[in-house]
Amino acid sequence: MPNQVDGSAVLYRNINIEPPTAVKGVGNWVYMSTGHKFFDASCGAAVSCLGHGSIKRIEDAMVDATRAVSYISGLDYITDPVKKLCKFLVDSTHGRMARAALYSSGSEAIEAAMKIARQYVVMVDEPLRVNFIARRQSYHGATLGALGLSGHIGRRSFFESLLNSASHVSPFNPYHGLSENESISQYVQRLADELEAEFQRLGPKTVIAFVAEPVVGAAQGCVPGTKEYFQAMKRICDRHGALLIFDEVMCGMGRTGTLHAWEQMGVVPDIQTIGKGLGAGIMPAAGMLLSHRVTDVLAKNGGSFAHGHTYQNHAVTSAVALEVQRIISDENLLENVRTLGSLLKDLLKNQLEGHPNVGNIRGMGFFWGIEFVKDKATKEPFDTALNISWRLHEMAVAPPYQMYLYPGTGSYDGVKGDHVIVAPPYNISKDELLFMVDRITKAIVAFFAQPEIKPHLKSKL
Amino acid sequence: MPNQVDGSAVLYRNINIEPPTAVKGVGNWVYMSTGHKFFDASCGAAVSCLGHGSIKRIEDAMVDATRAVSYISGLDYITDPVKKLCKFLVDSTHGRMARAALYSSGSEAIEAAMKIARQYVVMVDEPLRVNFIARRQSYHGATLGALGLSGHIGRRSFFESLLNSASHVSPFNPYHGLSENESISQYVQRLADELEAEFQRLGPKTVIAFVAEPVVGAAQGCVPGTKEYFQAMKRICDRHGALLIFDEVMCGMGRTGTLHAWEQMGVVPDIQTIGKGLGAGIMPAAGMLLSHRVTDVLAKNGGSFAHGHTYQNHAVTSAVALEVQRIISDENLLENVRTLGSLLKDLLKNQLEGHPNVGNIRGMGFFWGIEFVKDKATKEPFDTALNISWRLHEMAVAPPYQMYLYPGTGSYDGVKGDHVIVAPPYNISKDELLFMVDRITKAIVAFFAQPEIKPHLKSKL
Repeated sequence: MPNQVDGSAVLYRNINIEPPTAVKGVGNWVYMSTGHKFFDASCGAAVSCLGHGSIKRIEDAMVDATRAVSYISGLDYITDPVKKLCKFLVDSTHGRMARAALYSSGSEAIEAAMKIARQYVVMVDEPLRVNFIARRQSYHGATLGALGLSGHIGRRSFFESLLNSASHVSPFNPYHGLSENESISQYVQRLADELEAEFQRLGPKTVIAFVAEPVVGAAQGCVPGTKEYFQAMKRICDRHGALLIFDEVMCGMGRTGTLHAWEQMGVVPDIQTIGKGLGAGIMPAAGMLLSHRVTDVLAKNGGSFAHGHTYQNHAVTSAVALEVQRIISDENLLENVRTLGSLLKDLLKNQLEGHPNVGNIRGMGFFWGIEFVKDKATKEPFDTALNISWRLHEMAVAPPYQMYLYPGTGSYDGVKGDHVIVAPPYNISKDELLFMVDRITKAIVAFFAQPEIKPHLKSKL
Repeated sequence: MPNQVDGSAVLYRNINIEPPTAVKGVGNWVYMSTGHKFFDASCGAAVSCLGHGSIKRIEDAMVDATRAVSYISGLDYITDPVKKLCKFLVDSTHGRMARAALYSSGSEAIEAAMKIARQYVVMVDEPLRVNFIARRQSYHGATLGALGLSGHIGRRSFFESLLNSASHVSPFNPYHGLSENESISQYVQRLADELEAEFQRLGPKTVIAFVAEPVVGAAQGCVPGTKEYFQAMKRICDRHGALLIFDEVMCGMGRTGTLHAWEQMGVVPDIQTIGKGLGAGIMPAAGMLLSHRVTDVLAKNGGSFAHGHTYQNHAVTSAVALEVQRIISDENLLENVRTLGSLLKDLLKNQLEGHPNVGNIRGMGFFWGIEFVKDKATKEPFDTALNISWRLHEMAVAPPYQMYLYPGTGSYDGVKGDHVIVAPPYNISKDELLFMVDRITKAIVAFFAQPEIKPHLKSKL
C-alpha cells in the first residue's frame, strides 16, 4: 500500500515520503534521529526567531500559565497573560494601534482582519463595499478566505472554485517590475495608477480594503516595499475611503529590524496581522492589531466583533509569546537584527551578487531573499521542471553545507522564478553569521557548478 | 473614549466591556481576580474535558517537548510527538482511518477538510464537483470557508458577501422537525428525499461532499443524529460519488462516550475533523482524519496535499494533546462519561423535563442541551429580544448557583430559540455531578420565576 510508509499515521507533506525526525534543537542547530544535523539559516519559514532549544524563562512562563488557567471561555472571561501580551503589542505601536486580538495562526489572523474590515464598512453604513484588492505573487494564508486574497497561483490552483476571490494588482518589485529607463518614482506612479484603475473598475465605493505584505515573504522571497510606494498606495485608499491592511505575519515582530515592518514604510495600516516571530514557533501564536479608526467605529456600534475562535486569546500561548517578546527586549535583540542585518546584507551582496545565476538579493534586517535566474542579463527564470530552489535547498541542508534555507518559487510571475530565504534567529552571533554566509555561498556555488545542472541549463539555452 | 476601558488593549468580545479576569482553575472550579468562583458545567464550550488546574504529567510532556524541538519546518521534518499522536488517533479508529494531520483550531481543520475533499475530486478526474451541501442551524467555524459551510444565520450575517456559500438542507432534529403523526423512519425518509433533491438541484456530479456534525453542538445545543439517519444520508452520498465529512470538533474525542461520535452513528465518514477535547483546552489542538478512500487516491496522484500551515503538526501542542489522551485512557474516563452520562440524562430529564419552559432535553454522554420555550405545547420560542439563554447563563454563573453553562441561540430556526449546553469534564465524580445538576436545576427554576421575566412573557402571550 503506497499510503502506509513504515505504518505511519501522519499526513506528511508528501504522503508517500516519510521525512526525517527532528529530535533536538540547540541554538541554531537541529539534530535528526539519524544523527544528521543542520544550521537553521531561515528559522524554518522565518519562525524560530530565538533559535532552537529550550529557554528556562519560557518553560517557567508556560508552566505558570498552565497552573493558573489554560483555557477559559472567551465569552465572559479573560486572563492575565492575554491582557499583558495585548498591552505589550499595543504599547509597541506608540499609540498608533488601539486593540489586539490573539489567534492561533497567521491564516486565522488574516481571516479575522478580513471580517473586521467587512464589519467596519457595514458599521459606517457602506454595505456595498464587498471587494478586497490584494497583489499578485502574494500569500496570505491557507484557509479559503486567506487563500482567496493570495495571488500565489500555485497554492490556489486546486481550489479556485472554492475561492471568493479578491482582485489582484501588480506587486512592488523593482527587480522585475521596473521598466527600462523608468525611475522608481515613475514606477511607483505607474503602480498607483494601476491601483486607482482597479478601484475604478470595481467601483471605488465597493472596495473594503487594500491588503499587502510590507515585505513580501514566501511568495516572492523578501521583497520590501518603500515609503514612497506605500504612501502612494495609502493616498489612494484614503481618497476612496478604503482600509489599508498590512499582513505582517512573516515580516513583522522584529524580522526587519523594527518590531513592526510598517515603522519603516512611512505609513500606519488600519489593520495589521502578526504571526511567526510573535511566539518564536514555541507556541502557535498570531494576532491582529486594530487602529483607533476601526475600534472607534466598533465601540460606537455596540462594541461586538461578530467573530470568535475557541482558542483565541489562549492563556498559555499568550504567556509564552509574551516571554518571547520580553527576551527580545531584555537582550536588545532587535539592535542585533539591525546591526548584523546590515552586515548580512553586505556579505550576501559581496559574495553572491556576482554569481551568474544570482539575479537579485533583497530584503531588510534578518529577512533576505536570493533569487536565481538562468540568464542574468534577461532575468529569465529557470524552467520550473528543474525544481531549482527545492534542489538547492536539499543540497544546502546536506553535508558538507548543513544549512537549512527556505525555498520558494513563483518570484518571477507567480509560477516561474526560484528563490531561497535567509532569515537567521535574532540572537545569532557575528561569528555564526559569518559561518552561515560562508556555508550558504559555498552551497550555492557548488549547486550551480554541478555537471547535471550545467548541461541541462545549456540544453535549454 | 469608549474604546479605552481601563486602558485595556484587548479586543474583548465586546470592546466596551472588560470581562472579569480568571486567575486560577482547580478541578471543576474557576476563580476570578474578584474572588468570585464558578463550577464549569460546560467546560467552556465543551473544551476543558479534564477540568481546570495543572496536571503534572501534562506539565512534564509540555516541557519535554519544548526541550526537544518546539517548531520545525514541516516541509522536510517531523517530530516524535506528532508521529505518536497521529498514530494514537489512527489506531483509535480500528483501521477505519488511514492518516491524521494536526492543526491549531477546529476552523482550520474544517478548511483542511474542504480543501482535501476538493483535491480528491480533482484527482479522481471529477473537477466539476465544486459544491458542498451542509445543514441549516450548523456551525463549522469562524474562518470564511468554514463559515460559508455553516448554516448559522446570526454568525454569517455581516459576512454573507464574503462567503462562497454551501447549500443547506434541513438538520435532523426530531423535536422541531418531526411532523404530527410522522414516524422517525418517515422523518428520515423525508430528510433523505430533501438531500437527494438538493443533489439533483445542484447536479449530482457537482457535489464534493455532504458535511454534518454527528451531534450538532453550539448551533442547536447537542442534537444527536441516529444510525438510521446517517446511514440514509451516506447511501445518498455513495450513490452520487460524494464524500461524507463529519465535523466532530465539538462532539468528538470522547464527549459522547466514545472517542469518535461516529462509532455510535453506524457510518464511518470519509473525512473527519476533531478539536476541543483533543487538547482539553490546554493547547490549541485540532486535527483531521482521512479514510483510506481519500489517502489511496492522494498516494496514487503524487502524494502531496496542496495545503500547509506554519503551525500544523506542532510538536509541543501534539505532546500535550497526546498526554491528555493518555490520561483519558489510563483513567478510563470514557467509561465514566458513559456511566455518569446515563445518570446525567436521567437527572436532567427527571428534574427539568416537567418545567413549563423546558421544551427539550437531548444529547449523548456528557453533551446535553436544554432548549427553552415560551409555550411547551406549541414549542414556540422566546422573543430574541428577551435574550433568554444569555440572561439565564449570567444568572446561573452568579451566586448562589455558580454554574457556568454555555448559552446558545437559533435552536428553533437559526435565529430564534434558546438553549444551554451541559458538558462536564470527563473526570467529574458522581457527587459533583449530583451537585451540578441540583444547582443547574435551581438556577433554571429561579430564572423563570423572576417577576421581571414573567410579566414580560405574559404580555407577549
